[in-house]
Amino acid sequence: MTFPVVGMVGGGQLARMTHEAGIPLGVRFKLLSDTAQDSAAQVVQDVMIGDYRDLETLREFAKGCDVITFDHEHVPTEHLRALEAEGVVIRPGADALVRAQDKGVMRATLDGIAVPCPRHRIVSDPADVAAFAAEGSGFPVVLKTVRGGYDGKGVWIVRSAEEASEPFKAGVPVLAEEKVDFVRELAANVVRSPHGQAVAYPVVESIQVDGVCDTVIAPAPNLPAELSARAQQLALTIARELDVVGHLAVELFETGDGRILVNELAMRPHNSGHWTQDGAVTSQFANHLRAVLDLPLGDPRPRARWTVMTNVLGGDYPDMYFAYLHCMARDPGLKIHMYGKDVKPGRKVGHVNTYGDDLADVIERARHAADYLRGTITE
Amino acid sequence: MTFPVVGMVGGGQLARMTHEAGIPLGVRFKLLSDTAQDSAAQVVQDVMIGDYRDLETLREFAKGCDVITFDHEHVPTEHLRALEAEGVVIRPGADALVRAQDKGVMRATLDGIAVPCPRHRIVSDPADVAAFAAEGSGFPVVLKTVRGGYDGKGVWIVRSAEEASEPFKAGVPVLAEEKVDFVRELAANVVRSPHGQAVAYPVVESIQVDGVCDTVIAPAPNLPAELSARAQQLALTIARELDVVGHLAVELFETGDGRILVNELAMRPHNSGHWTQDGAVTSQFANHLRAVLDLPLGDPRPRARWTVMTNVLGGDYPDMYFAYLHCMARDPGLKIHMYGKDVKPGRKVGHVNTYGDDLADVIERARHAADYLRGTITE
Repeated sequence: MTFPVVGMVGGGQLARMTHEAGIPLGVRFKLLSDTAQDSAAQVVQDVMIGDYRDLETLREFAKGCDVITFDHEHVPTEHLRALEAEGVVIRPGADALVRAQDKGVMRATLDGIAVPCPRHRIVSDPADVAAFAAEGSGFPVVLKTVRGGYDGKGVWIVRSAEEASEPFKAGVPVLAEEKVDFVRELAANVVRSPHGQAVAYPVVESIQVDGVCDTVIAPAPNLPAELSARAQQLALTIARELDVVGHLAVELFETGDGRILVNELAMRPHNSGHWTQDGAVTSQFANHLRAVLDLPLGDPRPRARWTVMTNVLGGDYPDMYFAYLHCMARDPGLKIHMYGKDVKPGRKVGHVNTYGDDLADVIERARHAADYLRGTITE
Repeated sequence: MTFPVVGMVGGGQLARMTHEAGIPLGVRFKLLSDTAQDSAAQVVQDVMIGDYRDLETLREFAKGCDVITFDHEHVPTEHLRALEAEGVVIRPGADALVRAQDKGVMRATLDGIAVPCPRHRIVSDPADVAAFAAEGSGFPVVLKTVRGGYDGKGVWIVRSAEEASEPFKAGVPVLAEEKVDFVRELAANVVRSPHGQAVAYPVVESIQVDGVCDTVIAPAPNLPAELSARAQQLALTIARELDVVGHLAVELFETGDGRILVNELAMRPHNSGHWTQDGAVTSQFANHLRAVLDLPLGDPRPRARWTVMTNVLGGDYPDMYFAYLHCMARDPGLKIHMYGKDVKPGRKVGHVNTYGDDLADVIERARHAADYLRGTITE
């Protein structure tokens, strides 16, 4: 049967879980991975080891793929444009993807389509940061390198011009943003296909610890229907206006006065959508594949009243296997997703999904498992 | 992280779906496959191509595996015993597995533990078949070669001694069984681990067409609770008495007078358990892996009121992709599982799961998809 070949660049856990979702779909999956030990490279049949920063490597990889998609945002935009010029099908395309790769371009684009964002502008040096602060309500100010950041890396919260020198050392343009006094963080996940079909997952609450996603609750508790619809509409508008193909995660700040402001965009399966593997009819990974192949999208509706995802971070114990066994014994309904990674303190090595009718119980089960696997609790 | 390595012998769809289920579990999965084109070999990273009938090949494969398990029953029992004698961990073990490999041994064992079976005995020639018929209620009689049959192959229903010559031509012992006047077929699926933990899935109804599984309804409609419990208990007893490790499917005949008789046993994930992928908290594939690794078993309970599985058989059209696209567009909630196989008429190339509250609707959706994919309907 001539099913198409999807090539994914990047061997992380997102590629691992995309391959998993592609097996029942019958998708033929090729991977470009830095090493054979990467999370996805351990489980995919057709792996090319190579450097995604090298255009020749990308060209070689693209041969025999019907479509190329991504596990991360780090492929140089000029390479994407070169490949597109040569006729390679890239989804999302370079014009869309640059808006997730470069936070400066992202903000300019969102301003252009009147999407509410934190106050922001590109700043040139610490004195300019002070000027930016003075233009609004003062310090603290959030500084971000426009490229290369993730999971809290490449982001600084500064309280004075004196604290603002570090971000400029990388030689990458720096974006200043007001520090939003939000009540919580939300994420609106949508998927869009090339012919414009789109689906919206329920809006979730995302709880960050030290700049890293810790817990996701689906749907976001006590979210007024109007706000939920507004967040979904915002994500669908961004997907359409930016011509996104595939999964789009829109990270949002919810403010005390009922506004939602866009924090970040990701044009790939996203940590805030991992709950869909066990909590939705169609997972974000399956729908990302369906979208990049221009197949009809799957039902995004939830399967349970509440689904909670907690990230499993590495702790002090390099071998999690016995903790893992303990968690399975304690809770036979736990949905554990391991990434095959070596444990390093603070590194995302897996996640846990739980679901049920009682939110407090569902949260407790997921948190217990994540804490026990990390080693921060022993009972 | 030092997760164990599971080696699976056989590259069919059961291995493909077991690998899929092993990815979130963090299981390291090795495959022994006849060819690189086999269903599972297309999607597994670590594949050895070789002949499972060759002991040296099996020995080589077993190196670096913590446990060996199976996609089919066809590995010679003497090879399994040789490997066990050399210290290889095989689950289910040779002593258990021979009872699923050899229908004569299976019947003798079930007789020994007083499990109700159709009347049966080994027969030596067509005249002996006539004698067997005369001992009971006459013809028709079911004849089975004790080894090598599946999906209706190796099974004959004969109406006279004259019709009974074919089964003896293979030179394999032949088992005669009364043709049970059943009202329907059921299947009781259980999973058991080496330390004796066991879980039972809901008893399902299995509808066969031309000796091949066509539709599975979970749970079996209108099954009295007493009969359901009896079927589960029967399967748990067989699993314990035969020291089965992993998934055990017990195919049953339900008679009009409220008896259940064992038709067949399979000690591996089974077609009657495919519904668990989308309809149970833990799939048969995940629980098979957990069992062979002696990990605590996952919750076998259903996630929906009704789940229906229909097999997708190959039809006259070699390329299913456009039918597939059509089915996705018609029903965004369809869970399609493709095996990556070339389409041949009558070959199992995939299955479809549907679930919901309205049984008639859930059946119609699954049947429509299977029929459309096969090409027997065009709208």
